[in-house]
Amino acid sequence: MINVAILGYGVVGSGVAEVIKRNSQSIKQRAGTEIRVKWILDIRDFPDSPDKDVLTKNADDVFNDSSVDVVVETIGGTTIAAEFTKRVILSGKSVVTSNKELVAAQGPELLQLAKENGVSYLFEASVGGGIPIIRPLNQCLAANEIHGITGILNGTTNYIFTQMRKEGKSFEDALKEAQQNGYAEKNPTSDVEGHDTCRKLAILSSIAYNEFVDFQNIHTEGITKITTTDMKYAEAMNGVIKLIAISRKLGDKIFACVSPAIISKEHPLANVEDVFNAIVVKGDAIGDAMFYGRGAGKLPTASAVVADVIDIAKHPGFGTESVWIRNEENNVVPIEDSLAKFLVRVKISNISEAKKNISSLLGPIEFIELNSKIQDDELAFITPIAIEKELNSKIQELKGASSVIEVVNIIRIEEE
Amino acid sequence: MINVAILGYGVVGSGVAEVIKRNSQSIKQRAGTEIRVKWILDIRDFPDSPDKDVLTKNADDVFNDSSVDVVVETIGGTTIAAEFTKRVILSGKSVVTSNKELVAAQGPELLQLAKENGVSYLFEASVGGGIPIIRPLNQCLAANEIHGITGILNGTTNYIFTQMRKEGKSFEDALKEAQQNGYAEKNPTSDVEGHDTCRKLAILSSIAYNEFVDFQNIHTEGITKITTTDMKYAEAMNGVIKLIAISRKLGDKIFACVSPAIISKEHPLANVEDVFNAIVVKGDAIGDAMFYGRGAGKLPTASAVVADVIDIAKHPGFGTESVWIRNEENNVVPIEDSLAKFLVRVKISNISEAKKNISSLLGPIEFIELNSKIQDDELAFITPIAIEKELNSKIQELKGASSVIEVVNIIRIEEE
Repeated sequence: MINVAILGYGVVGSGVAEVIKRNSQSIKQRAGTEIRVKWILDIRDFPDSPDKDVLTKNADDVFNDSSVDVVVETIGGTTIAAEFTKRVILSGKSVVTSNKELVAAQGPELLQLAKENGVSYLFEASVGGGIPIIRPLNQCLAANEIHGITGILNGTTNYIFTQMRKEGKSFEDALKEAQQNGYAEKNPTSDVEGHDTCRKLAILSSIAYNEFVDFQNIHTEGITKITTTDMKYAEAMNGVIKLIAISRKLGDKIFACVSPAIISKEHPLANVEDVFNAIVVKGDAIGDAMFYGRGAGKLPTASAVVADVIDIAKHPGFGTESVWIRNEENNVVPIEDSLAKFLVRVKISNISEAKKNISSLLGPIEFIELNSKIQDDELAFITPIAIEKELNSKIQELKGASSVIEVVNIIRIEEE
Repeated sequence: MINVAILGYGVVGSGVAEVIKRNSQSIKQRAGTEIRVKWILDIRDFPDSPDKDVLTKNADDVFNDSSVDVVVETIGGTTIAAEFTKRVILSGKSVVTSNKELVAAQGPELLQLAKENGVSYLFEASVGGGIPIIRPLNQCLAANEIHGITGILNGTTNYIFTQMRKEGKSFEDALKEAQQNGYAEKNPTSDVEGHDTCRKLAILSSIAYNEFVDFQNIHTEGITKITTTDMKYAEAMNGVIKLIAISRKLGDKIFACVSPAIISKEHPLANVEDVFNAIVVKGDAIGDAMFYGRGAGKLPTASAVVADVIDIAKHPGFGTESVWIRNEENNVVPIEDSLAKFLVRVKISNISEAKKNISSLLGPIEFIELNSKIQDDELAFITPIAIEKELNSKIQELKGASSVIEVVNIIRIEEE
């Protein structure tokens, strides 16, 4: 028998209780022992909850109960969650979490603490909701040198982009709809500005490359600057715009970037629509492997949490083995020094003059025409691949050309 | 230090040796110990092999070496491979294999033997080549009741279909090309008749539903009856034809079937092209999750084998826990009693008469028109969903109608 305590009775926490109850028989068969929820800690009142006999507001009920084997942390954030996690680990219990913020911020310290105390700190649910990705990276692809990761890691922004592209909705309308459907928070900043994706990319990269990647070093752009016109240009390039999280191993450094990007319709991520997430892993032996599914939601995320609990139940006494070392030095290469390629849209006063200016600055380049010309005073072109800061300085220079009124948008193109 | 012996120095066996050597550093880091190949057993001569110092023709070198911890079986087939596997397990060593034939045929007995001897019998590489699927099903989705599996599990046939659809090649030409590229065996029967897919579906289903599914009970059709004209009809239905492996849990029985089938272009499997494989798993908590990658090939398959070896290295002393019980009774429902839906193509003498005959037999149905009519004497229609044997008897009856010359083809339609 494994006794579980859940900290935080929100969407994921209540989902964990539900999954453990609903699938108790098959979980027992797979875990080799019964798993039950002994305590749920939350300061709020839930008088009508099906779990009210195990709900408590008193943290000591959990911390003083020596029969508790595993603690599930679904509080979120990096303050109380961190304090409780440390207290649990120090008392010799394993912790399972879906809290990507905490893992991305304090992963090295919490993994080290878990190792020292002979317990596990597992976080399959922190990336990709229910999609199995952390364990496959750690175990199934363990024989590979991982060269890169490319993913759609945020369901909210993917839903917004899908609505914009397929239904022609504006960003604002698509966001409002996402909020009405419960796919976006009231305060959508963390999703639409890419912060959520950035933390998930940091976690995946830390596992893939066997070294801690600090999310604060990852260049991150949100999706608010993307319009339906941008999407039409992507379409004209036989591509789509997605919020892409990408990282690559480059010698002893790492390239990592979160931004809206144009990918070809042939790319395996191009058909990932709505709230779905998908992660492409590039390994030296396996080639490309992709993992796809619901990136969020109560039961999918809960199922990932419970899988971690089952893992602990099956391997008692096997604590955390590999830890993340926090580097003194930044191991992420500056985005400015990386190779990039952009679609650039400029508002112009004179088309032939502007084409001349652009070509003389960037060399022979490809101009993109929309099927139905929307603006006569606009040109769009694809830059060559070059060092990002050199491209940027040339685009800056372009702003000074008399034929160019303004740069409307600059959008990354991902070709891998 | 973990000492590995490899039985069989073919494509996969030599790939295993290569991956262990090439990625020794990162494997050591992930496994927590060094892994090295101590012996490779093969009766053939390999004078120029990079592994010649560990090659032996004498099985006793392996069986009498008590320092060997894990044996990799890549012999294939169900005779010598079975004998060697049993001998290894009885001597207290774990076995890792890519041999789907053996797992599908003797899985229950070999797992039981492994359990009794406190060792592991692992076979991640037996399905989906390098794609992590067995371990995710066993571990990552352990909190789910699995309702169903739908997959493209054979790269050879998927390559042939892709060539037929995209390049308009005939089956024969596409097969020849697949053979020239090394994607198909000289004797392609096992692939093109669906036997390979059937065994893989049996293995996945046995894990998913926690009970052994005997491959011999699975209805299996090959791809030889499919023509490029059939593919045009699928296109006219906004679909594609794939060799689909499907199984569903139906109460205490299982539905399982391997056959060419029309799936919608919106289906997640529709874009799986060439030699790629993909598996959609339907869980009660996670919803649909998909796993995608190279379904065959030396290094992808080897990477899955080595992942199993690393798992054993990380968890010494943890043998096989769950076994498959061979049912006395057939737990697979007969295909004749299952619900089905078909595209039917008939050669006719009189179009209006034939339409009347078909409609009076099957009720209001949908006729499919090709964009460019190829044959004037042909009608194609979609049957309603009905019990397969009832549909079949009605189609038989149709053959007797004076307006119908012959039934050209009957192709399954999968809508889930």
